Amino acid sequence: MGAAALLACDWGTTNLRAWTLDAEGKVLESRDFALGVSKLEPGEAAQRFETEVRPGLAAAGLPAILCGMVGSNLGWTTVPYVACPAGLDDIAGAMTRVTPSVRIVPGVRGPGLAGGGDVMRGEETQLIGWLAQNPERAQGRQVVCHPGTHAKWMVVEDGRLTHFVTAMTGELFAVLSRYSVLKSEARPNDAEAFAQGLAAAGDGDALAARLFTARARVVGGGKPAESTPSYLSGLLIGAEVASTPRLLGLADGEPVALLGDAGLCSLYGRAFAARGLAYQTFEGEAAATAGLFALHQRGAGS
Amino acid sequence: MGAAALLACDWGTTNLRAWTLDAEGKVLESRDFALGVSKLEPGEAAQRFETEVRPGLAAAGLPAILCGMVGSNLGWTTVPYVACPAGLDDIAGAMTRVTPSVRIVPGVRGPGLAGGGDVMRGEETQLIGWLAQNPERAQGRQVVCHPGTHAKWMVVEDGRLTHFVTAMTGELFAVLSRYSVLKSEARPNDAEAFAQGLAAAGDGDALAARLFTARARVVGGGKPAESTPSYLSGLLIGAEVASTPRLLGLADGEPVALLGDAGLCSLYGRAFAARGLAYQTFEGEAAATAGLFALHQRGAGS
Repeated sequence: MGAAALLACDWGTTNLRAWTLDAEGKVLESRDFALGVSKLEPGEAAQRFETEVRPGLAAAGLPAILCGMVGSNLGWTTVPYVACPAGLDDIAGAMTRVTPSVRIVPGVRGPGLAGGGDVMRGEETQLIGWLAQNPERAQGRQVVCHPGTHAKWMVVEDGRLTHFVTAMTGELFAVLSRYSVLKSEARPNDAEAFAQGLAAAGDGDALAARLFTARARVVGGGKPAESTPSYLSGLLIGAEVASTPRLLGLADGEPVALLGDAGLCSLYGRAFAARGLAYQTFEGEAAATAGLFALHQRGAGS
Repeated sequence: MGAAALLACDWGTTNLRAWTLDAEGKVLESRDFALGVSKLEPGEAAQRFETEVRPGLAAAGLPAILCGMVGSNLGWTTVPYVACPAGLDDIAGAMTRVTPSVRIVPGVRGPGLAGGGDVMRGEETQLIGWLAQNPERAQGRQVVCHPGTHAKWMVVEDGRLTHFVTAMTGELFAVLSRYSVLKSEARPNDAEAFAQGLAAAGDGDALAARLFTARARVVGGGKPAESTPSYLSGLLIGAEVASTPRLLGLADGEPVALLGDAGLCSLYGRAFAARGLAYQTFEGEAAATAGLFALHQRGAGS
């Protein structure tokens, strides 16, 4: 195991995950910090990084690369978005150096739905890492789904991100589970209710109407209220998986790469399977460190 | 103007609206009380009715009819749902007498989406009143949309409610405007942004993805954040109007009766017009009093 060569961070809205990598990109150590940018005051990110994150993991002066919402107006500084099509060279070339040893990865802006634009910060780094890990994917067209609070559905052509669509599925689940008539503190771990929710999603249209079935099945149908979060999760993920591929022109039989958190990918995998869609799952954290390492290497000296 | 013959109340989750009606059903007086059942303790509804609502409007012993969530487990007592098909006779015959002078209107349970069931409490009374006001509508098939926190799309066959679907559009707007990345305190009064939201609703599929356009148009597209509530309102109402009629088998050119609050009906009317759907608007409050009066007359002596 080599010495630490890079301090790599995925610094998002709610959490900061940091790794030290050796000169081959292998993970030496990792740590989480409750420093999500939504909890920080203006100017606080730079200071907390140097006084808490770096001393916990790495020597002063070790090169660091940060991706995610840390590059937004809520974070360290606003790093301008790179426009699609965006590949490794485009993104590495647009990193912003905020101190002699710290660089921040730009987000990406795409045409979005109906030309209205769409944006990401952080997912582009996992995508770059996934392409580095799977070089055969850098040819032709790939469709990648990254589930999360704001799920990203990405189209890659010859190694460059050309187009993506964001679905607020995770956030819908969170706000409906906490604040709506569907609220519940039960854990979403009822596989049968999840499958019923998947089925109730239909072809993903009329979501506001389909959502009320989560209420009616309890009030009018006698189903246990504790099963509501599982049903709601199945309904929302099912509706996303049923309808979003059409927005990307997914062809019959065209496979989707499912890239992200293992637990979430497993739920999405059930939705793909229920609809007969071809998919393959990839680990998001490994892709994140591979992406930060690839950007570090490509951006060296800039 | 005659003497008061009936104390009529629409007693919902957030508000209680009471009217006195004369022997012809004409409104003599009306008053609102901040006694929505969501704010009441168990047993409180009966007591607050006799100590606050009745003394404010009517003599002791005047017959009273209450509809809405007051007939749920949160209200005065649980009045069992009447099953579809349900018309004036079915609903009047299933009212529950809770004191010698007070009766509560039952809600209605329907087959809902995909047989999962659906329920309403209160809207059935407006529907009954609308049919009483428009007796020519008691023949053949009618489709009625009642916008609200939980919008109801109702199918009436020969004067009886046979089927309905609930869309949580109003509640989605409320929770997303207050708790999500789309939150804003601006008023939704920007007609242009509303129209853009209507257009962005597409055919009502992929709602979780279309919702994120409300964020991307601000962050990536430079639109003013204050226009978000108007855009969001247009997007949600547009998606509902684009997709829910299919669930009811609305035929090409078949008109929809829009029944409810004038402001909401006006927003829905814009969504209908934008999609070339035929519609006619009817006043919800007048239908509510007509419904309570019709139920009082039909249920007299029971």
